[in-house]
Amino acid sequence: MSQQTSAIDCFNMKTDYQRTFRLDAKSSQKVLYVQGTTLKANLRRSAPPNSTFFSVKCTPNVQYSIDPPTQVTSHLSPITLDGKSVLLITMSSASQHENDSKLTVRYYGQNKDVLSNAILHLTALEISLDVDADRDGVVEKNNPNKGSWKWGPDGHGAVLLVNCDSERRYGKKLDTEVDYIAKLSDLRDMSEMVLRTRGPAKLPDGYKLTMHISQSDAESIRVYSPRPHSYSNFLPGVSSGFTRVLTSRVLSGQVPYLGGVAETSFYVEGLRFPDKDFDGLITINLSLLEPICRGLPETPIFTDTVVFRVAPWIMTPNTLRPVEVFVCSTSDNYGFLKGMKNLVLNSGYKLNICHEYMNRGDRWMQDELEFGYIEAPHQRFPVVLDSPRDGKLLDFPYSELLGPDFGYVTRMALRKDVSSLDSFGNLEVSPPVTVNGKEYPLGRIIIGVAFPTTTKGRNMTKVVQDFLWAQKVQEPIALFSDWLVVGHVDEFMTFVPAPDRKGFRLLLASPDAGYKLFRGLKNNGHGQAKLFEGRNDQKPITVDEILEDEGFQAENNYVQSCIDWNRDVLKRELGLDDADIIDLPILFKLEQDTDYEFRAVAFYPDMVNMIVLGKSLGIPKPFGPKVNGRCALEAEMCSLMEGLGLTCTFIDDFASYHRLLGEVHCGSNVRREGFDFKWWNLDM
Amino acid sequence: MSQQTSAIDCFNMKTDYQRTFRLDAKSSQKVLYVQGTTLKANLRRSAPPNSTFFSVKCTPNVQYSIDPPTQVTSHLSPITLDGKSVLLITMSSASQHENDSKLTVRYYGQNKDVLSNAILHLTALEISLDVDADRDGVVEKNNPNKGSWKWGPDGHGAVLLVNCDSERRYGKKLDTEVDYIAKLSDLRDMSEMVLRTRGPAKLPDGYKLTMHISQSDAESIRVYSPRPHSYSNFLPGVSSGFTRVLTSRVLSGQVPYLGGVAETSFYVEGLRFPDKDFDGLITINLSLLEPICRGLPETPIFTDTVVFRVAPWIMTPNTLRPVEVFVCSTSDNYGFLKGMKNLVLNSGYKLNICHEYMNRGDRWMQDELEFGYIEAPHQRFPVVLDSPRDGKLLDFPYSELLGPDFGYVTRMALRKDVSSLDSFGNLEVSPPVTVNGKEYPLGRIIIGVAFPTTTKGRNMTKVVQDFLWAQKVQEPIALFSDWLVVGHVDEFMTFVPAPDRKGFRLLLASPDAGYKLFRGLKNNGHGQAKLFEGRNDQKPITVDEILEDEGFQAENNYVQSCIDWNRDVLKRELGLDDADIIDLPILFKLEQDTDYEFRAVAFYPDMVNMIVLGKSLGIPKPFGPKVNGRCALEAEMCSLMEGLGLTCTFIDDFASYHRLLGEVHCGSNVRREGFDFKWWNLDM
Repeated sequence: MSQQTSAIDCFNMKTDYQRTFRLDAKSSQKVLYVQGTTLKANLRRSAPPNSTFFSVKCTPNVQYSIDPPTQVTSHLSPITLDGKSVLLITMSSASQHENDSKLTVRYYGQNKDVLSNAILHLTALEISLDVDADRDGVVEKNNPNKGSWKWGPDGHGAVLLVNCDSERRYGKKLDTEVDYIAKLSDLRDMSEMVLRTRGPAKLPDGYKLTMHISQSDAESIRVYSPRPHSYSNFLPGVSSGFTRVLTSRVLSGQVPYLGGVAETSFYVEGLRFPDKDFDGLITINLSLLEPICRGLPETPIFTDTVVFRVAPWIMTPNTLRPVEVFVCSTSDNYGFLKGMKNLVLNSGYKLNICHEYMNRGDRWMQDELEFGYIEAPHQRFPVVLDSPRDGKLLDFPYSELLGPDFGYVTRMALRKDVSSLDSFGNLEVSPPVTVNGKEYPLGRIIIGVAFPTTTKGRNMTKVVQDFLWAQKVQEPIALFSDWLVVGHVDEFMTFVPAPDRKGFRLLLASPDAGYKLFRGLKNNGHGQAKLFEGRNDQKPITVDEILEDEGFQAENNYVQSCIDWNRDVLKRELGLDDADIIDLPILFKLEQDTDYEFRAVAFYPDMVNMIVLGKSLGIPKPFGPKVNGRCALEAEMCSLMEGLGLTCTFIDDFASYHRLLGEVHCGSNVRREGFDFKWWNLDM
Repeated sequence: MSQQTSAIDCFNMKTDYQRTFRLDAKSSQKVLYVQGTTLKANLRRSAPPNSTFFSVKCTPNVQYSIDPPTQVTSHLSPITLDGKSVLLITMSSASQHENDSKLTVRYYGQNKDVLSNAILHLTALEISLDVDADRDGVVEKNNPNKGSWKWGPDGHGAVLLVNCDSERRYGKKLDTEVDYIAKLSDLRDMSEMVLRTRGPAKLPDGYKLTMHISQSDAESIRVYSPRPHSYSNFLPGVSSGFTRVLTSRVLSGQVPYLGGVAETSFYVEGLRFPDKDFDGLITINLSLLEPICRGLPETPIFTDTVVFRVAPWIMTPNTLRPVEVFVCSTSDNYGFLKGMKNLVLNSGYKLNICHEYMNRGDRWMQDELEFGYIEAPHQRFPVVLDSPRDGKLLDFPYSELLGPDFGYVTRMALRKDVSSLDSFGNLEVSPPVTVNGKEYPLGRIIIGVAFPTTTKGRNMTKVVQDFLWAQKVQEPIALFSDWLVVGHVDEFMTFVPAPDRKGFRLLLASPDAGYKLFRGLKNNGHGQAKLFEGRNDQKPITVDEILEDEGFQAENNYVQSCIDWNRDVLKRELGLDDADIIDLPILFKLEQDTDYEFRAVAFYPDMVNMIVLGKSLGIPKPFGPKVNGRCALEAEMCSLMEGLGLTCTFIDDFASYHRLLGEVHCGSNVRREGFDFKWWNLDM
């Protein structure tokens, strides 16, 4: 993939790069050499006038060659000085002492009389800024690919996390909002970078090492290092053990040269997720500066460069193992809560109840937040994406979820740009798929929007869409969900695990399947069976009455066409066959909403709006017509699911959720384990 | 290359995409079919209860198949109705009349008794939104690749120009600032897009065609179309012949369906160049909308999509043929002007003089602007990039250059962010090069900045750097130029054409080459020859005096090390050998500037700061020491250049430019022809 590099990348000197330097035939020079480079001098340029021959001799640690090549018979036998003769110098190992190596160029006149000597006193240094470019969790030495980033199993390039958790549970702040290291544990959320040096005890006078970043990158990272002298006295919770090397205001900073064989650790902290204006790539440079004199800028004579990519935020599909389930407790949802408790605890997962002091009556746990995670080779933790919906649950993600190794991210939108489609019941993710040979091993994000052909409809707000697209690793699909009053994709679709085919099925609400079931009931003599029987909050209706209502049929035909439209997109974008899709018998009705537009709501509890916990499904109890004492809708649902080895538990959400236009899924949320697949192994 | 597509791309239905529709076994349906798609109906879904068999018959224009395939013996022999049976329908040509084709599905019971008929009255349409996706200047019909963009000679995708010229010479505005078509000639700067339709005289009731774009893309284009009825009455200069179909505020608009075999032209106008936040790609969609009923949104049942890329701004290196030369006339530059006139007119090019009422004494024609061009297969014109420098020449680019087929672009920076490095003597471009196998057939942009290792230095302002990088086709190289008082790359480097090797030489200022020449003079007995001899505005100095001044030698050693640093970068980034580089004998001196930093200026007129007009070079007259009546610096320069077949003309710029810290190049500008190479043929 192509990537924009910043202008200053041209300053980078890579391994084996040549550095031109000036030979001085009049006095001896001290020259600092860095392992992996080649010093290059034009022999003619500084030769005394009338020089005709030259010879070179050097101490054992120094190697040289002449370009264009000449026949060198012995070190001291003079060579004809060509106008283009160039001397190339390398050194085989780092110096133990300053100026411990030497090279002399001797110039001769026509009669091989010595005209002058150019003497170099050489010091060799080894300098390597190192990162975990091979992504194994260990900072290896001088990876040849550390200066670039490549996706895929044969790729390379280090990974950076946005330090979006909070080391503190109380009085907490995002760690990115704090520009010091509050606790040692925070280092685990950063990427280690090691400066490895080898050479004499100190750098020659005036030379120094500087770490530097571009102005653009400075907005996205901080770099810390332990204070060398106080490190041993470091106490957890005390920040003074670390210094900020680079921040958004400090783009370049000197770093110590420790002498001998030394390693200095740095900790790189990511501050922002990839977004529309940030591709996630960060370049950090380390330069060796040569002094010139007072009033002149020091010259970088060697630059080592490393590249990081900020880890994307990754969503977790229904097929991943649940870790914990979240629901709200309200004054009126005791029955629902009891049903959920049974389901979750029987399935062996943890249930978290958000109590009323926090939810203030907002029961839509699905809508306020989306669970995901971020991952680097050395660390992974969950990150909650807080919706700009901001109902009364708005404080929950920050106040209750953010904590040590539990990250938080949000996108701010103007109040006027936020609609019901910004609730995260409208943000789902598919299981892994392959589409026309293209693999999506982390699945694809699914959101709902209005048809782009109209400017009237509601949409998911642009800042959230931009964020989702910029993560790149779960390329989003936009469905048409604005036909629903609430407008969430989870009102007509979900995914369940399956033992065969692609490892999952797409479940779609289907009025056609509903009508087919009801017509079958009627044909089998159950036309008088009643939906909603025994409920005192909903007038019962017979199968016959439903089938006779032509207007209702027309409304459902429209709903079916909307779902079919999405079905076509999903088949195309997820590479699905009809056999990968199961139609669930669900009817809708149209209501004129506040815009005077007709939009759909589920006619009876919307069974597709379920919670998926491994092989256990928690499904809104549909209150369908009973045949031989058993709800025909539940029976059909069970029959469709049991072939996949899934167990259906029907949960009564009628009064406390369904009548408020949501169901089980809208009222719950599941944090799941991350993928085994590492996002950096994607072929992009 | 990877590209971010916008969320709504998922709505695109491509050729051969299937559309699910509902068969109605109870009443006949009217169905609109679009060529290239497949209609798909689940036969079981709407079958009457107890259906066991079915049969299909249709009129000749209709083709169908059953999936999974069955043994069809005759049209009327009933087939067993499988639970998964799907009917796939295509039509071979567009309809002449509404509902002129028909397909019937008949359902049978167990005893092959007819249960019901689902009757489809079909109308076929051909719809194609077309662009010049094969880049030959002609809008071909339904290019299969029109919906994506690919670089390279085997690439595809249409090209859009930023309409940054001004059709009017007087009272002018950028055409992009005017949201109507002022003159018919303006259409040439836009890209034609054709809607081709074939079908009955009108669309069935309620259907309509809509063109639509995303909110992001709407900032970057407008779409116009001729008003159908007034088109024949169209008068040049009258805007009313065209309507705006899409603008930044109108993201979707209905377009007429003309009936029969019809073509409607649209004109797409680019509004912004690629930049940090805009990759240059634009998607335009055309959808066919199906009515549902009042209060329900129409459903897009077919969408055709085209993609454009906005043409980048391209710079022209010295090796391209000059068209016209620009210089300023000031109260004190008569001699310079005379020299330039002779050079330019003798070389056969046009000379444009910017007079004092416009330049107000600002003579730095190089610094205020950079000439470039933009190109599409159907149109190419020059575009001036106006520098944020904004000296007294600031009005010249807009007032004097902008005009019909002469475009203008600028980037606004805060006053405090603009430095001398923002003058475009600091913005150059190399001839075409190949670097480690990577081709740059349009060369590479070269700018000068400070070392990134310091935060003190001056830089080219970020908005201009971002713009240059975003053009992509001449990937920039950043050199170190902050060591100079003025800080422009043209103070130490230029390119001249050459008949051999890579087709050019890089010329570099070289104090070492200067000292070598002066030492040679001294050795040959010319130590008393004087620089600046006969000038009354500069004290003469002998060769001996220069060679004896050790401080001056040290300053020049430093300058040489700065240039060598850049030489290493240029060799690496342009793939040059030493033989591609010529060192010119030029000395510098250091001065303490307003920052109390020592920076360099040319000691005598800086010969590398030349104007290159084909094989004629206009070089600052150096006023070097004379040997046998001839300036030794001029002689050396001529000798170095004549091997390349280049002629040197020395122009006296001493008083009016050199002493003001500029030279011939700084005081002139050259508009050149564009490359023969088309930028879209780059392999990116």
